Amino acid sequence: MSRKREIHLGLFLQGAGHHVSGWRHPHAEAGSENFDLLRRVSQIAEKAKFDMVFLADGLTSGVDAHPSTIARFEPLTLLAALALVTDKIGLAATSSTTYGEPYHTARAFSSIDHLSQGRAAWNIVTTSYARTANNFSKSHPEHDERYAVAEEFVDVVRGLWDSWDDDAFIKNKQSGVYADPAKVHVLDHKSKFYSVKGPLNIPRSPQGHPILIQAGSSGPGQDLAARTADVVFTAQQSLAEAQAFYKSLKERVVKLGRKADDVAVMPGFLPVIGRTAKEAADKLAELDQWTDLKSAMPLLEERIGHSLTDYDPDGPLPDLPISDQLRSRAELLTALARRENLTIRQLALRVAAGRGHHIMLGTPVEIADRMQEWFDGRAADGFNVMPPFFPEGLEDFTQLVVPILQERGLFRTEYSGSMLRDHLGLARPALPSV
Amino acid sequence: MSRKREIHLGLFLQGAGHHVSGWRHPHAEAGSENFDLLRRVSQIAEKAKFDMVFLADGLTSGVDAHPSTIARFEPLTLLAALALVTDKIGLAATSSTTYGEPYHTARAFSSIDHLSQGRAAWNIVTTSYARTANNFSKSHPEHDERYAVAEEFVDVVRGLWDSWDDDAFIKNKQSGVYADPAKVHVLDHKSKFYSVKGPLNIPRSPQGHPILIQAGSSGPGQDLAARTADVVFTAQQSLAEAQAFYKSLKERVVKLGRKADDVAVMPGFLPVIGRTAKEAADKLAELDQWTDLKSAMPLLEERIGHSLTDYDPDGPLPDLPISDQLRSRAELLTALARRENLTIRQLALRVAAGRGHHIMLGTPVEIADRMQEWFDGRAADGFNVMPPFFPEGLEDFTQLVVPILQERGLFRTEYSGSMLRDHLGLARPALPSV
Ligand SMILES: Cc1cc2nc3c(=O)[nH]c(=O)nc-3n(C[C@H](O)[C@H](O)[C@H](O)COP(=O)(O)O)c2cc1C
Ligand SMILES: Cc1cc2nc3c(=O)[nH]c(=O)nc-3n(C[C@H](O)[C@H](O)[C@H](O)COP(=O)(O)O)c2cc1C
Repeated sequence: MSRKREIHLGLFLQGAGHHVSGWRHPHAEAGSENFDLLRRVSQIAEKAKFDMVFLADGLTSGVDAHPSTIARFEPLTLLAALALVTDKIGLAATSSTTYGEPYHTARAFSSIDHLSQGRAAWNIVTTSYARTANNFSKSHPEHDERYAVAEEFVDVVRGLWDSWDDDAFIKNKQSGVYADPAKVHVLDHKSKFYSVKGPLNIPRSPQGHPILIQAGSSGPGQDLAARTADVVFTAQQSLAEAQAFYKSLKERVVKLGRKADDVAVMPGFLPVIGRTAKEAADKLAELDQWTDLKSAMPLLEERIGHSLTDYDPDGPLPDLPISDQLRSRAELLTALARRENLTIRQLALRVAAGRGHHIMLGTPVEIADRMQEWFDGRAADGFNVMPPFFPEGLEDFTQLVVPILQERGLFRTEYSGSMLRDHLGLARPALPSV
Repeated sequence: MSRKREIHLGLFLQGAGHHVSGWRHPHAEAGSENFDLLRRVSQIAEKAKFDMVFLADGLTSGVDAHPSTIARFEPLTLLAALALVTDKIGLAATSSTTYGEPYHTARAFSSIDHLSQGRAAWNIVTTSYARTANNFSKSHPEHDERYAVAEEFVDVVRGLWDSWDDDAFIKNKQSGVYADPAKVHVLDHKSKFYSVKGPLNIPRSPQGHPILIQAGSSGPGQDLAARTADVVFTAQQSLAEAQAFYKSLKERVVKLGRKADDVAVMPGFLPVIGRTAKEAADKLAELDQWTDLKSAMPLLEERIGHSLTDYDPDGPLPDLPISDQLRSRAELLTALARRENLTIRQLALRVAAGRGHHIMLGTPVEIADRMQEWFDGRAADGFNVMPPFFPEGLEDFTQLVVPILQERGLFRTEYSGSMLRDHLGLARPALPSV
């Protein structure tokens, strides 16, 4: 793409907000199952010309979980519903390769791409938490095996998306030919983990392939992204770390013969916006005051993969082996604790606020500056915006920060196309020649 | 329920119509992936006060398949989208217990029940066609094993739907309690086929449980229905057969301690409506003329479970063992061929027109009479209406037949409630006492 490089923005949508205590703010609406709230918030993001709405997902629940994840809509049905109340904004949902079936996944995202006229995206995850297996009558595979499965899973899905030529469904009433037999391709995939014949029972979708997002930042995660993804969602704490990740990822992309620009790197960040730096800090403190160690610790422990009950919360994070299951997140949090000399309590609070993502605190200009610094400094091609609570946390961002980015020519003032692929500046994939 | 017995009506929605050649009619719109058509048609059914829209499903494709099934929306995402463009009508989709996971299924239907404010229904099938297994890296289980799996699958789903009390999500900003720990129930299911811990990550849905429909009419199929279903969808060719099935099913229901009225039996039927009987017959002949043996035979063969290429199409159906995989449908078609002395060609044409469901041919009054005869004669509590093509085939029915049923006091003129459960006259299931 020769067009000017612009920041991409995702709205990371969570019913009860991203800060663990966000829902307790007097202005917060907490709606895990409140479709009306999610609809309004998605429309706010669309009005601000965001690239996409983004839904994370998990397959477990419990009262100790982050309130946004105790109970929520099933993401694919939610995305289909959001397709009907929005026009232009992309629609991304998370679906696991460890707990899914390629045929179902290929079909559901294609279906959403049809329903939304070309706005669907699949966030590919391998599922971090081993307890998920308890809901699926199986055991949780090891980290690297999960990625081996994911590599094959994604290939099957992409193959199924190419089952039919774009013009296969001719529906000729005179000749009686509904689907042209010369334009169907039987996948006949048989490999280590999957055997999937095809063809898929849905026409090729408006985008050709729905957009592929990858979230998981270890070496194997980056390899999967470099080979298959259009967008990488990642958690990065500091500019330097983000730059290192960005470089590592783009090098892998180029090594595989793709262009560095073919993959957009989008770290998550949690904006806390004030008229002054002090007002922003006070806002965060207001939210943090509602977070006690009891609610914060499980969030830290599940991301570190170790129980910390035997350690002094006001002492340093002990030296613990990096959990293989959780690799990139466990490394990130350990590095953060070491770098900033955080106690367990401080680290737990940080996770409760941003779950390992960067927290941007400041005035609108300061936040725009930081975003520009990351963008110009090749730490990010865009950001997955994580408002601490809804809808106000998003409105602050769209009303106060977005106009600054637009004035600086860093962010669109209008959509130039109608598909997510257009927003990302990506060409429609051709059918593989036979 | 002490209220007056009334006919229940489902609209069996298929993009390219139900008659295999319906889409070739000059007035037909053929839209497997045409959401706008499906939306309009669903709204017509809602205006006519139908109980529900019904989506069948399959997990294979091929150019020889019925045009409505070569390519279609994934049903759960389609249902979520239809929820946003309708208000009162129930929304039923098929999902297989043989190719699904209870946690995913429970969650998706609960999500649709929330999105539609209480209108979701799950049509439980075990999947007839063994070739489906080729898309799922496994082998197709035997008929009775499929039902054994289904029995346990449905129990897990119902258990997961009761994970949370209706008032569990208190979201108290002062106390900081989002979900009341006393109101969550961990299922901890461990049995022959599934081990699913729970709880489900979505609140209990508006209907308590989405409505359960069962389709599969063998003995094991009826047992599953008698124990778990609210509605039974079935294919019946003659009044006598339908009465026998109705009786058999209701006896099983009562034997299990449920009330006969707790389960509505709804055979499918394909209405072909004319101003005169002759006009109706001509209409069907017009559609049938477009059906050649080449397109009809695969539909018959897959329902009989045998290749018929070695037999004279103008001779009788040979004596073939009933395919165990397809039991009830293979029995029904064999009985039909014997009773009416049909040749293979005639039987294939019949299947191409109605796929084993009853074809009602006649004037609006004749069709209303037939429906009343089945309803009063305890052959049916309602019908799944299968227009030969869309939208005209449905409009004929809603404009010409529905008013007659309403005049006779057999069908509602207004919805009395807003949930599918209300339309069916069923109480909301209480939570099991602990
Ligand atoms: C930024 C980010 C977002 C993620 N989002 C999800 C998610 O929504 N659901 C999920 O099950 N796993 C999610 N994961 C987990 C990954 O898919 C993966 O299983 C885990 O991070 C371990 O892989 P890694 O070491 O490559 O990061 C996410 C990971 C990252 C880094
Ligand atoms: C009226 C009816 C509708 C059915 N609809 C579907 C369907 O939409 N998708 C599917 O995979 N199987 C469907 N089935 C197949 C059944 O789930 C079952 O696998 C098959 O009929 C064999 O069981 P039986 O002998 O009990 O009928 C249907 C069966 C009947 C009788």
